Amino acid sequence: MEKELRFKKEDLMDFVVRYMTKLGVPAEDAKVVGDVLISADVRGVESHGLLRLGSYYGNRISKGFIDPTTPYKIVSETPTTALINGGNGCGQVVSYKAMKMTIEKAKQSGLAAITVNNSNHYGIAGYYSMMALEHGMIGVCMTNSQPLVAPTYGRTAVMGTNPISVAAPSHDKYPYVLDMATSAVAYGKIQLYDKKHEKIPLGWGIDEDGNVTDDPTKIKPGGHGALLPLGGMDITAGYKGFGLSILVEILCSILSGGNYLTNVGSPSSPNPTGVSHFFMAINIEAFRPLVDFKLQLDDMIHLLKNSPLAVGRDEILVAGQKEYDYAEYNNIHGVPLIQPIVDDLIKEGEKVGVAFPIEKAINN
Amino acid sequence: MEKELRFKKEDLMDFVVRYMTKLGVPAEDAKVVGDVLISADVRGVESHGLLRLGSYYGNRISKGFIDPTTPYKIVSETPTTALINGGNGCGQVVSYKAMKMTIEKAKQSGLAAITVNNSNHYGIAGYYSMMALEHGMIGVCMTNSQPLVAPTYGRTAVMGTNPISVAAPSHDKYPYVLDMATSAVAYGKIQLYDKKHEKIPLGWGIDEDGNVTDDPTKIKPGGHGALLPLGGMDITAGYKGFGLSILVEILCSILSGGNYLTNVGSPSSPNPTGVSHFFMAINIEAFRPLVDFKLQLDDMIHLLKNSPLAVGRDEILVAGQKEYDYAEYNNIHGVPLIQPIVDDLIKEGEKVGVAFPIEKAINN
Repeated sequence: MEKELRFKKEDLMDFVVRYMTKLGVPAEDAKVVGDVLISADVRGVESHGLLRLGSYYGNRISKGFIDPTTPYKIVSETPTTALINGGNGCGQVVSYKAMKMTIEKAKQSGLAAITVNNSNHYGIAGYYSMMALEHGMIGVCMTNSQPLVAPTYGRTAVMGTNPISVAAPSHDKYPYVLDMATSAVAYGKIQLYDKKHEKIPLGWGIDEDGNVTDDPTKIKPGGHGALLPLGGMDITAGYKGFGLSILVEILCSILSGGNYLTNVGSPSSPNPTGVSHFFMAINIEAFRPLVDFKLQLDDMIHLLKNSPLAVGRDEILVAGQKEYDYAEYNNIHGVPLIQPIVDDLIKEGEKVGVAFPIEKAINN
Repeated sequence: MEKELRFKKEDLMDFVVRYMTKLGVPAEDAKVVGDVLISADVRGVESHGLLRLGSYYGNRISKGFIDPTTPYKIVSETPTTALINGGNGCGQVVSYKAMKMTIEKAKQSGLAAITVNNSNHYGIAGYYSMMALEHGMIGVCMTNSQPLVAPTYGRTAVMGTNPISVAAPSHDKYPYVLDMATSAVAYGKIQLYDKKHEKIPLGWGIDEDGNVTDDPTKIKPGGHGALLPLGGMDITAGYKGFGLSILVEILCSILSGGNYLTNVGSPSSPNPTGVSHFFMAINIEAFRPLVDFKLQLDDMIHLLKNSPLAVGRDEILVAGQKEYDYAEYNNIHGVPLIQPIVDDLIKEGEKVGVAFPIEKAINN
């Protein structure tokens, strides 16, 4: 296993703020970017954490592909809705503000939804849906993304992994937090099998002819092959994952007038990406007393977790539980970063003259 | 292939109304039930069509398990939301009224959602989501249902097939209509393989130990084994289908205070089922001009359908297209009913003294 260093959240945040402000991001906005990225590492979703600080954000800002000031504009607005142009800024910044607006509107109106175009990669979808929890609301968040996934019966990457996140408050410690790509797996998972020279399960992806394959080298979206939607091939209902992916496009890009499908840029392309997002909040008190909802959700989770186990399994995991447990541990013991990510952060910091606080590693 | 008879919609509707009114259902309500059921047959979803008239509805009404007058009550209401008690009536009747209310509220407020408890099986989810289309809205509809599906790492049926339907209006002829169970497949599909003594693909269901199986006889939810959620086993991301299924429960039963998981009754149980539903409408004009939305959705569908095909495939099918084509054909040539369903309808009619209009078959 890779060596893992642990840091206090505030030390990492301090680094991100110094790094981002050097690139022209206002300090308040830099804190938002930092909080979203560090939250991913805290929740054990390192693929969306500080690993991306340079490649998805810093480097793109310094090359002029992302506007560091996030000059977003409200294009249309009603008491329950808004359409926002993200100003090709930091995805996290406009998303944080959009979800806050959504929650404010839902406080007044019971229900609210905001769609955002002309934005960029925003980190983990779950960050924004979870913002609704402390307000006694169900939070919903989706985003489109660059093409990696083939439609059922297609053979090229046309759709993004287009994640859906929904969070609902419980009374007990675990809220329900779904945060899932609508593809069968993330591309990173296939790359991992490739590195280890292992075969992948059938249902993850297709080769350049559109045939399902167990060879990870045959799946290089952009070059050849593609990921499959959730469900895999048609016989195992991959057309449902395809349908969910298009649902995400409809709420993000068609409702906002943003880029869609192959017109969405990748974080590695030398152009604005034009990513679109969707946010929704459902104020539970508009339907029934919040405490009743929370207690009933507890009871449902309890029923699920106490249903008979498959032979050889020791626990039924409800959406968000694993990430909650990681966060609880990491909040006490420090945010874990593997050595290669630390090395990368040191290098990225040097590019703009900001030192990564390696000396503050808790367990160095 | 089974012999298939075709009927005019109005002749079938006339039969359903005479049949349901004999059982004490008001004529207006009977028309709603008839329209939902016949629409399923028109759209090629015969598993949810007139096949169910007796077993899911008529027989249950005559035994007192469903209240034919559907005495629903609005429990709480705001300009954007409502919670309705379905009065253990016909699921179609309260659902039709709830979706109409949802659309009216979204006309005024841009966005609306209604949750319903104490209801019954309501037919195809797509019927209600599609009601939003002619109003220039995105329609959403979900329902929970009796336990058939195991959670990931479980081994018994705990969740329903809990479908999600979303409809969005296009300018061209095909609207986008997703209508999918959150299980990998419907139980009927496994029964079909069982009848044909064929093996099922791995990923559809588990045996009584919780192991994935290709033997359809090992999957008898209620007895032993269970369906798997969309995605199949954990390695192919079945936990995502599990998460989606629980999302449906949260919006239907936890938000409404209704029955959930194993407390939801089956249409064959001698008790009220306590099914819960969720409806939502998003008024597109609250965000941007409807025509722009429709034209952009057309373009996205066009892009999808014209993306490169897998070798050996001849068309990429967008959600709802197949059903739209069926409906177009059947609206001209008559509603198809296979002989066993016709025989069943004759028998069901005889029970209450109403003749099925077999003589009106178009192609007899």
